[in-house]
Order: sequence, then structure tokens, then C-alpha cells
Amino acid sequence: MKLVLFQNAGKGEIFPGILTGRGVVSIAGAVLRGYTAQLTMQGIIDDFDKLRPSLEKLAKDGPATTLENARLRAPLPRPGKLLACIANYWEHAQREVRPLSMFLKNPDAVVGPGDTIEIPEFTEPWAFMHEAELAIVIKGPVKRVKRENWRDAVFGYTSMIDVTARGEGRRTWPATTPASWMGKSFDTFAPIGPCIATAEEIPDPNNVIIRFWNDGQLRHNYNTDDMEHRVPELIEWATNIMTLNSGDVIACGTNHEGLGMLQDGETVEIEAQGVGRMSLKVHDPLKRKWERGVYMGADSTNPEAVKRHRPKDTG
Amino acid sequence: MKLVLFQNAGKGEIFPGILTGRGVVSIAGAVLRGYTAQLTMQGIIDDFDKLRPSLEKLAKDGPATTLENARLRAPLPRPGKLLACIANYWEHAQREVRPLSMFLKNPDAVVGPGDTIEIPEFTEPWAFMHEAELAIVIKGPVKRVKRENWRDAVFGYTSMIDVTARGEGRRTWPATTPASWMGKSFDTFAPIGPCIATAEEIPDPNNVIIRFWNDGQLRHNYNTDDMEHRVPELIEWATNIMTLNSGDVIACGTNHEGLGMLQDGETVEIEAQGVGRMSLKVHDPLKRKWERGVYMGADSTNPEAVKRHRPKDTG
Repeated sequence: MKLVLFQNAGKGEIFPGILTGRGVVSIAGAVLRGYTAQLTMQGIIDDFDKLRPSLEKLAKDGPATTLENARLRAPLPRPGKLLACIANYWEHAQREVRPLSMFLKNPDAVVGPGDTIEIPEFTEPWAFMHEAELAIVIKGPVKRVKRENWRDAVFGYTSMIDVTARGEGRRTWPATTPASWMGKSFDTFAPIGPCIATAEEIPDPNNVIIRFWNDGQLRHNYNTDDMEHRVPELIEWATNIMTLNSGDVIACGTNHEGLGMLQDGETVEIEAQGVGRMSLKVHDPLKRKWERGVYMGADSTNPEAVKRHRPKDTG
Repeated sequence: MKLVLFQNAGKGEIFPGILTGRGVVSIAGAVLRGYTAQLTMQGIIDDFDKLRPSLEKLAKDGPATTLENARLRAPLPRPGKLLACIANYWEHAQREVRPLSMFLKNPDAVVGPGDTIEIPEFTEPWAFMHEAELAIVIKGPVKRVKRENWRDAVFGYTSMIDVTARGEGRRTWPATTPASWMGKSFDTFAPIGPCIATAEEIPDPNNVIIRFWNDGQLRHNYNTDDMEHRVPELIEWATNIMTLNSGDVIACGTNHEGLGMLQDGETVEIEAQGVGRMSLKVHDPLKRKWERGVYMGADSTNPEAVKRHRPKDTG
């Protein structure tokens, strides 16, 4: 089942719904409404086992609004905690395994389908890149989950663009050590969506194709089977540190082979297999221009692998 | 004015109040109640200019509950965002200024007066230290505040113990590069309180004495006039990155000259001049023992400065 938040005709109140082949079916009458849309979705996560039969019936028979008339919003507009993996893909490199680590990303930076990524008007950081990621949606509270019990902590999946400000080279701004990851927490730098695909929609989160296009140019194109630390280990690691609650999110990291710049006026799309595709706009008040190629600078992990996925017509 | 959240006789509902010389005065009848205690406090921040006359009258004349019968709780139980400075004190060092940077700390890790810091039962990270800090409470929403207008963004102040798990040496766990600061986000690692002192209580946040005791042993004892990047710059830097909202918190960093270990059964106290003093317990299920001295290891910034403040009777 694909859970969404949406507005009718793009305006006003935000309703919970299900994304179906017929369009969006409201489930506002079938679930408890929270104080915020975020809390409504958290309540659906908490009550889902009980709600499932009535939601499945609605998905089949309920009145649907076409996607032309429904505006999808971020399915988790304000996660309690937004964790994101540091690196976490092999990227065809021959090397020792790197230690698993995560950072906290600003949960107020979340935007959703059709929203705009606002590039900040600073020349330091100097550039802004997309990192397309699979994201785990937690069912909690969970603490100290063993990796073999990882499914106990997973409600479902979504996708996230971990928008990243760059300093020197390809390093996350501020590029001075020690790292702080603050360049990933500018307002609008956490697009999430288009839906929460419940766990049964993705039998194996380590076998999901992630794609990302910029103005139709394919950039990211990888399978999550290349993850260095796999989903069960991510759950164990994060819950060893902190209690995770329903609606918290762990983004699994990106394969850097598809990185590219974001710049004014572009339309970007992310697609995670089983979750679906969403599109956002990019706005830069300074209207800067960068080379439109897939990133293949000095610290690219594998230029040959990038070339394989790089379309012929890049500018 | 010193705003608090409290429970009567330590049980049940949490009320907003004012800390006075006579005890705690409830202001529950004078302010709007939010969906959570956090939101109640955020509403008080938003409405404070309008509320002030009635709150001042209550502080003077309202019925008071003695501190023996009122249990104070964290004045912001779940901040929207909890930013914390990386380093940020000169510590008598002769060196170049270091770049300002901050990390995001888990806002679900907040506890308050009388609560217990739970040391996690892991041997990696290997030790747990207190960092006593002044913390700024934001009035928002604010974005891109110039340093000369810093007071526009400040509602008041509180104190925070930035509890920190250590890896190799004195480095924050995980000690592998790049830094992720996750060792500061274990559950209960963000004690905040005992009150929010409104801005007029602290004429200059860069002239505040911060003290910290562990079982009566003085550890931290410094003035915020030693801050490397001062409060106006912290406000400018953070709001250049993200919108800060009412009830968000920026902790100003610690002077590392007073660091020490936290261990099972200890009682710790933090005091920020103008904010007041709060006490917490420490619990370690493994009941480990570390040397009780103030940290003076190989990477201490200034062992002589530490010695000046180190009491004669340390174990």
C-alpha cells in the first residue's frame, strides 16, 4: 500500500490518502486525525495492523481523485528525527570496508512532490548537489533492535534527495574538519516522497533500483544491493544509540557515481523502485551556471562506472 | 522572568509556570495550552509580549508551590531543532581562530531537572563526559538574522549538559573520520533546564559564569566571555542556514578545561548565572569506574588552567 498526504486541487487542508492505479483515495474518514499532518501519518503507522482491512477496501472501492486534481505533499512533513548514512556504497571500489556512521539532518528542511529546492544565495558553499537515496520509515518506539529482527522496526520506505552543499572539492560544506554536515540542513534540502510504500511493497530493501533525472538527463542509476552496510545493520546501529519512533526516517546513503549539480530552473525527478517517482523544481536567486555533467572530478570513486550510466547527450 | 514546566508532587500533568523566590507559580490559567508541553512553551514564547503584564502580576501575587512539592521538568521537552557548537572556547590557547561550526543533536534525547542520564551499556564508546553549556532559546521564525540584530532572534537562555560519548582519546564517538557527532545523541544525553530565563535576565550572554559539579566536586567553572565565536555570530551563522522557530535551541559549546567522566550513582549539577541550578543523577548498568579527576589527558588544551579550578580533595 502506498500512503500519501495530499491536498485537493493543491489548496488548503492536507488529507491522508492511498495512491492507487485510479488516483488518490482519501482515507481521512477511516483514520484518526492528528494535531498535524505529520502526527496523522504517525498515527496511521501506529494503528496500521488494525486499519489495514478497511484501508485495503477503500483502496479497491473508495472514490478516487486523479493526480491532476490532487497535489501530493511530503508523506512525512516533519519527521521526529531524520538520520542519514555517511557514504555507505561500495561504488565498485576495491578497498577495506568503511565504518558505518550517520548524521542528523534538519527535519524542518523537508519538502515534497512538486515543491522547490531553494539554493541558498551564498558563494561559500559554492555548489549544490543531489544525492538520491532509499529511506526507511520507522515503526516505533524501538530501541536496541538486533539486525536479525530488523523487520520489527520497519514500517515502510520512501525516497529522499539528500541535497548537499559543497565546499572545497566534493566535500560537504563546511569543508573544514571536523565535519559537521550542516551543508545538508539548509531549508528545503530534504525532499521526501512521493509516498510511504508499506513494507510488503519492497520484499528486499537491498534490491531496489534508485534513479534520478535532471531535466530528463539520467544521473543516478544504481541498485541498493551495492550498499556497504545493509538495511538490517543500519537499523541495529541507529537503535543502539537512540529510541526511534514511528515516522522517524533513516536515509540509506547514496551511490556517488551519479552526483551532479542542481541549478536554477531545473526540474529533478527521483524514483525508487516500489515507491514511485516524484518531481521537484530548483530555484537559485543568483542564477549561477555549472557544468551539467555527472560529477567525475578528481575524487570520483569510479569514473568508468559513471561513464556507463552517463547519457550521450549531456551538455 | 524564569519560565518552567512542572508537575505537582512530581506526578501527572505538566503545567507551565514561573520560578519565583516564593516557589513555582502556575500560569496554566493565563496562557494557551498546546497539544504538548513543548507546544505550550512555544506558544508562551510567541505570545510573550502580550502575556508579560499578566505573568508579572502572577509572579508577584499568584499562589506558589514550594520546590519540595513541585517537580520541575525540562522547560523545552522536545525542541524542534537542537543545534550545538563544535568547540567554541579559546581555553587560553594561543592560536588562530577556528572556523565556527555546529552539529544537530537528537532533540528526543532531552531530559530535565531531577532526571537520570543513562550511560549506554557499550564498551565502545568507552567513556562518557559532561560538557556544561549556555544555551540560547530562539524566538522565531527567523532567517538570515544579521549579527547586529541578534537580539531579534533571542527569547531567552537555559543551560544544557552536552553529554558526550568518547572514542579514541577525547574524540567524540565514533572517533573514525569524518566526524558524525552521534555520540552526543544517545537517549538522555541532552539535559536542559532548570528554566528559560527571558532575555532581560541576562544583559550580556557573553558574560555569564557556567559551573558544573559532580558529587560536589567543582569541574567546569568558566565565563562565556571566553567564547571564540560570540552569541551574535552564532545567531547569524545558524539562521543563514536554516529557519529557526520558537523553542529551537542553540547550545554555545563548552570550555573543555573542566571536562570529567560521568559514572554510576553520581549526582551532577549545572549552574548558569541568571538561569539557575539543576541536578541530575547518573546511571550506568555496567557500573564502570573511571578516575574522578578533571580531564587533563594528552589533548587537554591547558593543564595549568584546569589545575587552577581543580579542588584539592579530588579522588
